[in-house]
Amino acid sequence: MKTTEGELIRAIRERVTRQRAHGDRIVRLGIGDDCAILRPPRGRELTVTTDLTLENVHFRRDWHPAQSVGHRCLVRGLSDLAAMGARPDAAFLSLSIPRELAGRWLNGFLDGWMLAAKRYGVVLAGGDTAEAPRAAKAGRALFAADVILIGSAPAGKALRRGGASAGDLVYVTGELGGAAAELRSLARNPAVDRKRDLKRHPHLYPEPRLQAGARLMARALATAAIDLSDGLSTDLAHLCQASGLRAEIDVSALPLAQGAALDDALHGGEDYELLFTARPGTRIPATIGGIPVHAIGRMRNRSREKNRPPVDLCTREGARVPLPPGGWEHFRGRA
Amino acid sequence: MKTTEGELIRAIRERVTRQRAHGDRIVRLGIGDDCAILRPPRGRELTVTTDLTLENVHFRRDWHPAQSVGHRCLVRGLSDLAAMGARPDAAFLSLSIPRELAGRWLNGFLDGWMLAAKRYGVVLAGGDTAEAPRAAKAGRALFAADVILIGSAPAGKALRRGGASAGDLVYVTGELGGAAAELRSLARNPAVDRKRDLKRHPHLYPEPRLQAGARLMARALATAAIDLSDGLSTDLAHLCQASGLRAEIDVSALPLAQGAALDDALHGGEDYELLFTARPGTRIPATIGGIPVHAIGRMRNRSREKNRPPVDLCTREGARVPLPPGGWEHFRGRA
Repeated sequence: MKTTEGELIRAIRERVTRQRAHGDRIVRLGIGDDCAILRPPRGRELTVTTDLTLENVHFRRDWHPAQSVGHRCLVRGLSDLAAMGARPDAAFLSLSIPRELAGRWLNGFLDGWMLAAKRYGVVLAGGDTAEAPRAAKAGRALFAADVILIGSAPAGKALRRGGASAGDLVYVTGELGGAAAELRSLARNPAVDRKRDLKRHPHLYPEPRLQAGARLMARALATAAIDLSDGLSTDLAHLCQASGLRAEIDVSALPLAQGAALDDALHGGEDYELLFTARPGTRIPATIGGIPVHAIGRMRNRSREKNRPPVDLCTREGARVPLPPGGWEHFRGRA
Repeated sequence: MKTTEGELIRAIRERVTRQRAHGDRIVRLGIGDDCAILRPPRGRELTVTTDLTLENVHFRRDWHPAQSVGHRCLVRGLSDLAAMGARPDAAFLSLSIPRELAGRWLNGFLDGWMLAAKRYGVVLAGGDTAEAPRAAKAGRALFAADVILIGSAPAGKALRRGGASAGDLVYVTGELGGAAAELRSLARNPAVDRKRDLKRHPHLYPEPRLQAGARLMARALATAAIDLSDGLSTDLAHLCQASGLRAEIDVSALPLAQGAALDDALHGGEDYELLFTARPGTRIPATIGGIPVHAIGRMRNRSREKNRPPVDLCTREGARVPLPPGGWEHFRGRA
């Protein structure tokens, strides 16, 4: 049981030192000084993203194994890099840790985090740790993590949300709604779900689409891209707003994951697939980076109707109905 | 009152857009995409640091004005850059916000943060926001922030903790113990303290020693440096460990702040002054970047006594007594 911040940092640093041998050369000075020192790769721009992982918001202690919490904490950031077509270089991890989690649970969290970091070539270069506070003497402290991912892409080449044109087709990688479906089954019976095949855990162990994003960027296939973290209806609305357009989605074209309902695919969130647009003349391969790709709709010029959501759903019967953003958003009581 | 994450982000982005005009050119793409894009300055290395600011650990809602919490949140990171001699370029801010603080309090926090950011030339380039969770239905949610500072220094020139040699003199900028003394008076009567002269708030409104650090780096005056965030006894021990040395501090040489006791200066923490070492032959000016500098001791070869703390205190009577690290450390119940 680690009891002081110094011991915690030493334990984390020791694990990182073992990891460093396989790490990237970008990190010139890692954990242990006032700052880390990074040498930016020549001719490349840095892409930086930060993502919070909060107990009772992004995970529940009684539903999620600690390894899954660590894995998902890192993947939240990696998925943002994937959406830009960037390569992950370094990560920083700030942890607010309840005293009773500082032993076995924290080790499990770090196991999950480090395993994913190794797999995707990320070096942990620094961070901060503190004991999580309680709101009241009788209360319980909550775990919180903030992950900072620093990646890179050739200067001027990173994919953005705002590059789509009217007429572009809309694509997604992989399947949709799997994370929401697994979360539902997890809520029903956490114990059963932990025993499932590790490869079929879209919620507990999602995979960031780094290869797919890197290929879309390198081959200049996509005009705009975003990752599906909040749900298709919300993330596509972000892409529409950034591009000054609206979009139409064909219900019949949506690649539903096993066990997923239409609502899971539209609003479920946390699928961490890539949503991107491409010119109608661009040949998009059937799989990118080993992941199937499906065309699901098209971009249109903005409607003149005020307050109409920027996304329409085209039903199997040929009707066009507005699809308001229904994905994950904090401060709406959905958390 | 901001109620959704989208509105919150829009409000923050609007403030940042106003700020951007004065900002640095390093941020090519700020808030609003999956990642920010930074163009690293040519010939420079990046220095990166992250620092948590947790309610009931680093501040108390009933003691600290929201503006002070925002100011201190940023300064924690800036002080780490100062200790490396780095120039601040960009910041990222992750916020976990209790619902009842999302209005006026959050605005005060952002006022304090943005005012300091403008003053020290920092551009807010991104971050994350979420509604802070409660541990139980009847419980209270706690505010948490994680600040990420990205700075830069000429390649290979950043000051580090591990460069000191035996015989080097130990220096500090400014005065010691002022933050601890103000915190004590704040605990006695928060209302009175808020009315004090704004320039005399070492705890509520500390100043990062960015100019002093930059000059020490540029003129190659210092052999090692660290900022005083945890307290002299702890931070000097870190510098000793990194340099493989021990140190002696002269009690009579310590520049005590007004109202500060010796204990405040030795263990108080959060003074955010710079502690640095220099060769005995190096002429250190009496003030650096407008801040007085005092020699307070010297570095020595490591003692052979096992478990002896690396710092000794030389009393006015000529005695040499071990000074165990007594500064701020989490997981020790001092928080």
